[in-house]
Amino acid sequence: MDRISATYLIETPLPVELAAASLAGEQSSGTFIAVPGETEELKQRFAARVEKITLLETVNSPALPGCHSNSGTFQRAELVVSWPVENMGYNLPTLVSTNQGNLYELSQFSGLKLMDLELPPSFAQHFRGPKFGIAGTRQLTGVEGRPLIGTIIKPSIGLTPAQTAELVGTLAEAGIDFIKDDELMADPPHSPFDERVDAVMRVINAHADRTGKKVMYAFNLSDELEPMLRHYEKIVSAGGTAAMVSLNSVGLAGVKKICDLGALAIHGHRNGWGMLNRHPVLGIEFPAYQKLWRLAGVDQIHVNGIGNKFWESNDSVARSIESCLKPLFPDTVATDVSRLKLRESQSGLTSAATTIGGFSVLPVVSSGQWGGQALETYRRTKTVDLLYLAGGGIMAHPDGAAAGVRSLRRWWEAAAEGLTMEQAVAKYPELKKSLEKFGKAV
Amino acid sequence: MDRISATYLIETPLPVELAAASLAGEQSSGTFIAVPGETEELKQRFAARVEKITLLETVNSPALPGCHSNSGTFQRAELVVSWPVENMGYNLPTLVSTNQGNLYELSQFSGLKLMDLELPPSFAQHFRGPKFGIAGTRQLTGVEGRPLIGTIIKPSIGLTPAQTAELVGTLAEAGIDFIKDDELMADPPHSPFDERVDAVMRVINAHADRTGKKVMYAFNLSDELEPMLRHYEKIVSAGGTAAMVSLNSVGLAGVKKICDLGALAIHGHRNGWGMLNRHPVLGIEFPAYQKLWRLAGVDQIHVNGIGNKFWESNDSVARSIESCLKPLFPDTVATDVSRLKLRESQSGLTSAATTIGGFSVLPVVSSGQWGGQALETYRRTKTVDLLYLAGGGIMAHPDGAAAGVRSLRRWWEAAAEGLTMEQAVAKYPELKKSLEKFGKAV
Repeated sequence: MDRISATYLIETPLPVELAAASLAGEQSSGTFIAVPGETEELKQRFAARVEKITLLETVNSPALPGCHSNSGTFQRAELVVSWPVENMGYNLPTLVSTNQGNLYELSQFSGLKLMDLELPPSFAQHFRGPKFGIAGTRQLTGVEGRPLIGTIIKPSIGLTPAQTAELVGTLAEAGIDFIKDDELMADPPHSPFDERVDAVMRVINAHADRTGKKVMYAFNLSDELEPMLRHYEKIVSAGGTAAMVSLNSVGLAGVKKICDLGALAIHGHRNGWGMLNRHPVLGIEFPAYQKLWRLAGVDQIHVNGIGNKFWESNDSVARSIESCLKPLFPDTVATDVSRLKLRESQSGLTSAATTIGGFSVLPVVSSGQWGGQALETYRRTKTVDLLYLAGGGIMAHPDGAAAGVRSLRRWWEAAAEGLTMEQAVAKYPELKKSLEKFGKAV
Repeated sequence: MDRISATYLIETPLPVELAAASLAGEQSSGTFIAVPGETEELKQRFAARVEKITLLETVNSPALPGCHSNSGTFQRAELVVSWPVENMGYNLPTLVSTNQGNLYELSQFSGLKLMDLELPPSFAQHFRGPKFGIAGTRQLTGVEGRPLIGTIIKPSIGLTPAQTAELVGTLAEAGIDFIKDDELMADPPHSPFDERVDAVMRVINAHADRTGKKVMYAFNLSDELEPMLRHYEKIVSAGGTAAMVSLNSVGLAGVKKICDLGALAIHGHRNGWGMLNRHPVLGIEFPAYQKLWRLAGVDQIHVNGIGNKFWESNDSVARSIESCLKPLFPDTVATDVSRLKLRESQSGLTSAATTIGGFSVLPVVSSGQWGGQALETYRRTKTVDLLYLAGGGIMAHPDGAAAGVRSLRRWWEAAAEGLTMEQAVAKYPELKKSLEKFGKAV
């Protein structure tokens, strides 16, 4: 029987074996007192299993309130726990309720964080995953061999559709590959969604007709379900190629529905993530989180950026990028390929489409990015399979937006050449302007 | 112009005014560097406004990692910030992205928790709220003047539909008002949803035909959208009256869609809540959280229980119950009544239906409850408008399930009479058995 396994970082005042057993019980067949139907046979078949315990350090004060230690110390440990797939079937929300759910409330733990999740290959038979992913996003934008350069419409809120479209015109002229709405901008009275799509796509389509380059614009359709479906159709009919969804605000069921439609690349914004992740021993780590959204079918997912304006360390950002680039089912290349071929034959896609999807997801680097961070981003991750977003870093460039976009591309050339900041500026003197305007140690 | 206001508990290494301004900027018109379109006029109209700052204590170590204090101290404060409704319109996911979103990641804060949310009366024109709420749930179950007594099918996972139905038969005979699936049990291979509904409703309908009492069973339909819709129809066609949704696992858009259907009372399970709430200076407090779900239309929402098996304090549980019982729009009784009348005339409901809904939500008390906690629950909240769930507390009662249900009702009678534990057991000697089996200090 296939099993799902989850790795946790935990902290407990109890002997770890006892705490682990209570975790497994609470999330499978247990209640606080034995009940009649809880037979040995049932437990054998459905009980969660503690697979591995690795003791870590002890601490003298609990990370979270609500539990008491007789010894005054709290033991940290890594736990691996597994469940039969039979417990939840192929049901993402119930997977979440099982792997996470009530666990965070147990007084047996003074800290609990879901670090990673391993799913058996059978999941690849039940979920399509990202329709576009890295290869599909590249195909839609015509960008190969370097990161896609993108930006966010700023100010985040307040521009009319006409003002937004004007800005899009400037950015398209500047050579941008990708533009997105801010997560604050969805369908407000001063920029109704349909009007914005019409105004923006008129500019993008005209630019594409003239130059052959179609800028990808991720319209933020985060909303209730009906308006999301309506707005999705609007984007498709206007010739758009992408939509953005605020993953945490919309939730798994809504996001999956949008991804399933399959006509647009889905840009997954993770705003709200800090609530789920910032505490070191509470919540969920990105390697587990991104797997859920890849299963749901998100094509592009935010990972923050090196030298960001947020709290997150560069190490953590680099780990997030790496997790996106790992295959979701590493042991099932054969399965995956046959699944893709099946999809291809069903959908009538050309053979090029077999390179699209396959649970690949494009990491979206953003937050206070201006180009200079490309060097460290590449040094740490050795990839150009990124969507690299700069807001102020483009629009506030001293020589204007076009110079901003050019400088971002140049920074990435320097990065891929392995140059240091000094070497980059020496080789490409035009980088000095952005360095002087935005630069700080990265 | 209508404004939404949010109250936060924050902790910052910066002067609080500065931190507050960065919060307001990040979540309205700001970026990390001034951009051309950010005019004074636009800022005037769309900027979030810091309404009030109340300084609290200072602490010497930060609650969350990722920010530096020059002084070595961190100031806590309560902030009230407001936004024009024009920024997001009536769009729940975008409201969440605005009030919460990236805020948790700002390095200007070493702690941030959304404590409460005030929404202008105009929201009552755009959201129906709970279709059933307290009055509607009472009407569907025929229970007045006391809490509804309910239970959870245990073991959580592993029973077949036939075994579940058999247990439902026992519980119905025992006089239970309400039964729910566990959040781990949705649509697994060993208990396919439709089969479970058929088996369970056959028993419930037969019992209702015989006795006139229809037990409310909340079938857990948490899943992707299409199966949720299919399963919802299944419940309706089988004569069921309720469905359960794991709120955090399904998400706002999916839950709202299910609530909008309006034929079933929606039981909102908050599993995953600990991740959002357990840390004292991170996440969201229940008074804010329950407002979002009432806007979405959830009829019953979990609040944990006094003397629970989880980490939460009794004070916090009592606050949660109280927040559910407060009107969502306290200043708009007139608006609310006219809205309800409008709905009534549109839907052809009888005048009794005007008491249904109106954004009322039924607090669901659960977690390690066995009846004895009724005394303290009532003492603190002075309400019987509760759905009181006991799992083991009923099924593991020494004299069987029927005695378990009877004892829960009796504990609530004693509670409403204001008795102490000693007085209760003296007046109702049958309570001794549950006290001896389950009792501990509450």
